[in-house]
Amino acid sequence: MLTIDDPAIVAEVTAMSDRYEAALMANDLDELDALFRDAPETIRYGVGEVLYGFAEIAAFRKGRTGGSPQRRVLRRVVTALGRDVATVNLEFQREGGTRIGRQSQTWIRTGAGWKISCAHVSLMADIS
Amino acid sequence: MLTIDDPAIVAEVTAMSDRYEAALMANDLDELDALFRDAPETIRYGVGEVLYGFAEIAAFRKGRTGGSPQRRVLRRVVTALGRDVATVNLEFQREGGTRIGRQSQTWIRTGAGWKISCAHVSLMADIS
Repeated sequence: MLTIDDPAIVAEVTAMSDRYEAALMANDLDELDALFRDAPETIRYGVGEVLYGFAEIAAFRKGRTGGSPQRRVLRRVVTALGRDVATVNLEFQREGGTRIGRQSQTWIRTGAGWKISCAHVSLMADIS
Repeated sequence: MLTIDDPAIVAEVTAMSDRYEAALMANDLDELDALFRDAPETIRYGVGEVLYGFAEIAAFRKGRTGGSPQRRVLRRVVTALGRDVATVNLEFQREGGTRIGRQSQTWIRTGAGWKISCAHVSLMADIS
């Protein structure tokens, strides 16, 4: 059976999530690309787009002038599912925004380190 | 390294996803509860709610009169991450709706069979 939340794995993936957040806020496209698994199976459902495969995801980022809106993470849960898979679920609020955002990622350990296999980002209805 | 998309695992989790969809459309609460991992780590980000832990998820369903709106699945991708974890990502459209919905689930194999460890459901901006 899978060991849930081995502390060493949680720590590894928490560090990856921190790297992702820093890269997103800096719109560091090379780093963001490096954190997604370069494979046709990789999926990213964004606030306003559905992207299938690494190539579509990379192209979307390149075309997104200025990158992601700045945001603050309100709550984050990293869950390790065995030694090679983990999920990161977090809530965020965009600067000046009144809606709660949610980001879910599933990370896997590859020969080139931890990579995002799929991600889903959305905003809930207005809370103001 | 993880084997990606072992056909036997993809088939197992595809069958679980079919069961989930049928239970959702029938608002079969016992079956829906049975498909989520009964643990405090389980997370469900819904269209209009954030739910942490199995108890919150079960309580939400119980309070949702009539259950989920009827919907049609437009596209589904099941990705097996090793033998014990898989993701299901799908797009759907609600009956009479004009928005594209997305549902992402991460399933894990437990002693009691495959269970959802986390899920995220959202609607994109209006496409009409």
